[in-house]
Amino acid sequence: MTTDNSFQVSVLGLGAMGGALAGALLKAGNGTTVWNRSPEKAEDLAAQGAEAAATAGDAVRAGRLVIVCLLDHASVREVLEPLTGDLAGRTLVNVTTTTPAQAREMADWAARAGIAYLDGGIMAVPQMIGHPGASVLYSGSADAFDRYRSLLELWGAATYFGEDPGLASLYDLALLAGMYVMFAGFMHGAAMVAPAGMTARRFAAMAAPWLTAMTGALDGLAAVVDGGDYTVEGQQSLEFSGLGDLLDASADQGISTEVVAMVQRLIRRQIDAGHGEEGFSRIIESIRQPV
Amino acid sequence: MTTDNSFQVSVLGLGAMGGALAGALLKAGNGTTVWNRSPEKAEDLAAQGAEAAATAGDAVRAGRLVIVCLLDHASVREVLEPLTGDLAGRTLVNVTTTTPAQAREMADWAARAGIAYLDGGIMAVPQMIGHPGASVLYSGSADAFDRYRSLLELWGAATYFGEDPGLASLYDLALLAGMYVMFAGFMHGAAMVAPAGMTARRFAAMAAPWLTAMTGALDGLAAVVDGGDYTVEGQQSLEFSGLGDLLDASADQGISTEVVAMVQRLIRRQIDAGHGEEGFSRIIESIRQPV
Repeated sequence: MTTDNSFQVSVLGLGAMGGALAGALLKAGNGTTVWNRSPEKAEDLAAQGAEAAATAGDAVRAGRLVIVCLLDHASVREVLEPLTGDLAGRTLVNVTTTTPAQAREMADWAARAGIAYLDGGIMAVPQMIGHPGASVLYSGSADAFDRYRSLLELWGAATYFGEDPGLASLYDLALLAGMYVMFAGFMHGAAMVAPAGMTARRFAAMAAPWLTAMTGALDGLAAVVDGGDYTVEGQQSLEFSGLGDLLDASADQGISTEVVAMVQRLIRRQIDAGHGEEGFSRIIESIRQPV
Repeated sequence: MTTDNSFQVSVLGLGAMGGALAGALLKAGNGTTVWNRSPEKAEDLAAQGAEAAATAGDAVRAGRLVIVCLLDHASVREVLEPLTGDLAGRTLVNVTTTTPAQAREMADWAARAGIAYLDGGIMAVPQMIGHPGASVLYSGSADAFDRYRSLLELWGAATYFGEDPGLASLYDLALLAGMYVMFAGFMHGAAMVAPAGMTARRFAAMAAPWLTAMTGALDGLAAVVDGGDYTVEGQQSLEFSGLGDLLDASADQGISTEVVAMVQRLIRRQIDAGHGEEGFSRIIESIRQPV
């Protein structure tokens, strides 16, 4: 495969993330056209050498590769559908957070219009774009990924998951679920210790290395899930993980117990089904089906 | 302060964690007496040089320092209360997971009986004891901590939080809350991707570095909490964090949405109270009071 960086890229949507994506392209010397609904967001990027397009259509027509990073799926449709004809023959990379179903809908529309479509899920905060640790997941057109790979790698590690355009969104959302839920767990802990006079930052200084260490347990928990035998030796049992102390102590601190009660419900459904002696990994069985 | 390692230590309770604690003492050459309700758990340790006591009372009388690591607070009371007289004049380190209120109850009983009491919260799985990354939190008798510190450090980093015996349990439980909730978030993600054919271990290989990177955001989230101004610039707003895509995609995958719905409820209560434009950190305000 050949890689070609000598072309104009257009970035539609200059929120914190879109701005970071365009900034990384400019920093690498790529010709970049930018557009945002409220044009003042293009000013900084124009000062860095971007062409500021007056309309989304002007931006699309300027770029062989069109990046779209808008608020949500509805915004993407609203901006791009009137430009279907202009997009024909170009490559569209949609890094807006969407559901897998929405990504597939976009891919179907793109296929009908002769647009090469690649869907992306950004695993980074804007500040991380172009720096170590940033990662972007892609699925959809393999040709588009191969052709523009070296450009996409300006943002972070680029991983391609397959032709099903919904996969990048699916993995993106699954990882974001882990992040949001971890943040909620952190906030629960910070709320528990606050009445004892510990600041949230002091708690974060304890929690960040602790949670990092505990990510080391995920592979072992996952191996039990994949093995399908929750009775294997050496696991903490569901009975032992009743979380009663945690709920009692949370209530004693005068805070809401709902964050940890959620985990306790997952545990209890398995205990109630007769699996109390089995390993903690079994909570995934409480999630696999709608309640 | 002086540190004295030339004495017998007794360990009561030889589950996976108690066994690891006793093993680390033996490995360091400390004279160690062990006891467990079901005596076969002492056999391995006896082969490593431990004295196996026939009764809990024999174990207590053998050690100047008594470590107790049992199932829960009720087990600790059941085993130790009949031995109150034997424990008088000794130092008791209770690393059983308890609530802060239970730790304070133990400390009150110990004070009345002339027992020096130190409460501990172990931030490690048994396999980590004596290895880098293990950490044990202590509170209660400062004298006991100072005297036995070098021995306690055989298990992992030892941090003392103050004379209030409940603090170690409080911080322990707050960190465990973070861990259990993070594990639930991971399992939600694994359940989301499973119908697309991704194994839990493959998902763990993506999630562990991602969640580790995201622990880097905790200090910033915490700084906003401590500052008390959720309107500071540069934050992701609650409105943007509606999690609707995440719930929709979870439902589309045919799984339970309850794990992420918990986070969405925390967000929505703040949005409903008029704070939708404020930062994500504000979810702690949904936790600070019982619902």
